[in-house]
Amino acid sequence: MKVNIELKKVVDNSYDITIDSLPKLEFDRKTAIVTNTKVSGLHLGYLLGKIKAKELYIITIQDGEEYKNQESVNYILEALFNHKFNRNSLLIGFGGGVVGDITGYVASIYQRGIDFIQIPTTLLSQVDASVGGKTGINNKYGKNLIGAFYQPKAVYIDSYFLKTLPKREFGAGVAEIVKMAVTFNREFFEFLENNDLRDDEVLKRAIKHSVETKASVVSQDEKEKGLRAALNYGHTFGHVIENETNYTTYLHGESVAIGIVMANELSKELGMMSEDEAGRIKKVLESYDLPTNYKIKDVDRFYDAFFLDKKSNDKTLTFIVPNGIGDVKIIKDIDKKTIYKVLEKFAG
Amino acid sequence: MKVNIELKKVVDNSYDITIDSLPKLEFDRKTAIVTNTKVSGLHLGYLLGKIKAKELYIITIQDGEEYKNQESVNYILEALFNHKFNRNSLLIGFGGGVVGDITGYVASIYQRGIDFIQIPTTLLSQVDASVGGKTGINNKYGKNLIGAFYQPKAVYIDSYFLKTLPKREFGAGVAEIVKMAVTFNREFFEFLENNDLRDDEVLKRAIKHSVETKASVVSQDEKEKGLRAALNYGHTFGHVIENETNYTTYLHGESVAIGIVMANELSKELGMMSEDEAGRIKKVLESYDLPTNYKIKDVDRFYDAFFLDKKSNDKTLTFIVPNGIGDVKIIKDIDKKTIYKVLEKFAG
Repeated sequence: MKVNIELKKVVDNSYDITIDSLPKLEFDRKTAIVTNTKVSGLHLGYLLGKIKAKELYIITIQDGEEYKNQESVNYILEALFNHKFNRNSLLIGFGGGVVGDITGYVASIYQRGIDFIQIPTTLLSQVDASVGGKTGINNKYGKNLIGAFYQPKAVYIDSYFLKTLPKREFGAGVAEIVKMAVTFNREFFEFLENNDLRDDEVLKRAIKHSVETKASVVSQDEKEKGLRAALNYGHTFGHVIENETNYTTYLHGESVAIGIVMANELSKELGMMSEDEAGRIKKVLESYDLPTNYKIKDVDRFYDAFFLDKKSNDKTLTFIVPNGIGDVKIIKDIDKKTIYKVLEKFAG
Repeated sequence: MKVNIELKKVVDNSYDITIDSLPKLEFDRKTAIVTNTKVSGLHLGYLLGKIKAKELYIITIQDGEEYKNQESVNYILEALFNHKFNRNSLLIGFGGGVVGDITGYVASIYQRGIDFIQIPTTLLSQVDASVGGKTGINNKYGKNLIGAFYQPKAVYIDSYFLKTLPKREFGAGVAEIVKMAVTFNREFFEFLENNDLRDDEVLKRAIKHSVETKASVVSQDEKEKGLRAALNYGHTFGHVIENETNYTTYLHGESVAIGIVMANELSKELGMMSEDEAGRIKKVLESYDLPTNYKIKDVDRFYDAFFLDKKSNDKTLTFIVPNGIGDVKIIKDIDKKTIYKVLEKFAG
C-alpha cells in the first residue's frame, strides 16, 4: 500500500533589497554580525552606529576566499552555540561574497534554519550574491560544492562601503553588471555605455537594474535547472583562465571580463553578434580598466579544462552565447572546431 | 530605493511512502547506499538483490547515535566527492533514524541539494523519521542542532527488516505509534487496543495509520511553528528521563513511553483525561513490555531540567497535553504547582 505525502504548497521567500544609505535597524532578538577581520576594521564602527539588538555579538572570520571553508563554518557555529542562539535568533552577513555565502550557509543549517540578513560591502556581492539564495563553502574538490539554496530576509546595499573598495575590485563588480546587461537587458547596456558608474547616483541605478535583472531570472529558475545558467555568461571561459593562473593573477570579475570577450568571439563565429556589438561591450569593460585579452599558451589544454568543472552533469559542454546585446542562448554541443577557432584567436 | 525580490511560488515536495515488500528499483544515475556496519551485515544482501543502478556505491558509517555527527557527514561527503557524484546523483539512506537523518542532511548540502530516498529498517524510523523531512546531526551542545528541512523523493517501508529487530527496539517503535494515535486519532487508538502489532498485517496497517497521521500534521506545519509540536507528546518528560539516565538505561521510545504516562497524569490533573483513559493507554504500552514507571529521585532537579532543552525559544515551559484520547492541546505556562503535583506522584 501507498501513502502520498502531500507537500505541495505556496512558499513565500520574498524579500526586499534596499539600495540606499543604511537605515537604523533594531532587532528584538539575539543577533550576530558575521564579518571578516578586514571589513570589521574598515566599517564595523559605521555599522554599529546603525544597529541595535537585544543581544549583539560580532563574529569575525579570516579575510579571503581560502577561508570559505568548513573550518570557518565550525568557528561560527561554535560561537552561536556558545551564546545559546536559538531558532528565533538572527545572523547578519557583513562583508563580500565569501562572508555572505558562509553566513547564509550557517543560517541554513543552524537548528535547521534561522533568519539572516545580508549587508554586502563589495560591488560584486552587492550586484551578484545579494540575489539568488546560493550559499555555500569550498573544499579541496572545488568551489561551492557544499551548500544550500537559502534566501535572506532582507538585503541592504549601501554604496558608502564602496568608498574603500580597491579600484580593481570595483572593476570586478562592473564586469558582473555588464554581464547582466548584455545577456538580458539591451536598454540597461545602453545606460552603461552612456553613463559612468563612478558617479554614485549612476551606480545606484545600475545596482538596481542588475538586481532586478537577476531577480527576474532567478524567480523563473531558482534552482538553476535552465535559464539561470545564462548568468554564467563569461564564466565558462573565465573559470579556465582563473584555474590556469592559479586564482592569483586575476580577480574573479576580471577573468569574467576576459571570458565575456571570448564568449562574444564565439557568438560572432556563430553569426549571433556583430563585430560592432562585440566592440561596444569591450569598450565598456576597458573603460573600467578591466582586462579583455589573455594569451592562451596551449589551446588543447585550455579546451580540455572545460571538462573539469566539477558541477557539470555530464560530458557535453554548455556555452552561454549572447545573441546580440540583450538576449542570450544556452547552447550545448557546439562543434569542437568552432570552439578551437575561437580559442586560436587568443593563442599566443 | 527598494527592489522586491518576488519568490512566492508553489513548491511541490510531495512523495510516496510505499508500505510493502521492497519492489525492484532501478536508477539510471550514480547512486550511493548509505548504511551502517550493522544493518549492512544483516540486510545489504537482500537490498542489493532489489537495486540496480548505473553506478552503485556502498558507504557505511559506524552504528550508534554517537556517530550521528560531523565526522560521519565528512566521511560520506568525501566518498561522494571521490566518486564524482554530481547534482543528478542519488543517495539512499538504509538503516534506522541515525542513518536516515544523516543521509538526508548530506543530501541537502551536497552541491546545494541532491535527491535522496529512505529505506528505514527500524520500526521507529519507519513510523517517525519517514515523514517530516527533519534531517540533521548532533554535536556536543545537543541533539539535531545542525540540520535542514529536506524531503526525500520516496520512502520504502518493508517490514521484512523488522524480523531481526530486537524486541526492545520494536517496543520503542510502538511507543511512537501510540503517541500518534492518542494525540490525533481515537479510532486508530482503538485499533491498537484491539489488535496485536506483532501480526504483520496489523503492523502494516498501523504503520500506514501512523504515517498518515504524521503526514497530516506535518503538511499543516512543516517547520514546526505550532501544531507539529504536538508530536512531542511524551517527549518533554521523556527527554529529562533520557538525560538523567545518561541515555543508557532506556531506548528513546522507552523513555517516551514513560513520558506519555507522565503527560497523562498532567492531563488528569488538568481535568482533561479520565483515570480510565489513562489506564487504557498504559495497558497498550505495557502489552509491548514498555516501561511505564520511573522513580524521580529529586523533583526539583527534574523540574529544572525542563529548562535545559536547547531548542526552547524562551523561558516559558510548553507541555503537550492529551485532551482525552484522539485530541491534544499545546499548553504554555502551566502553574508550577500543578507540574510539581504530577512529578511528586513519581517521586521515590
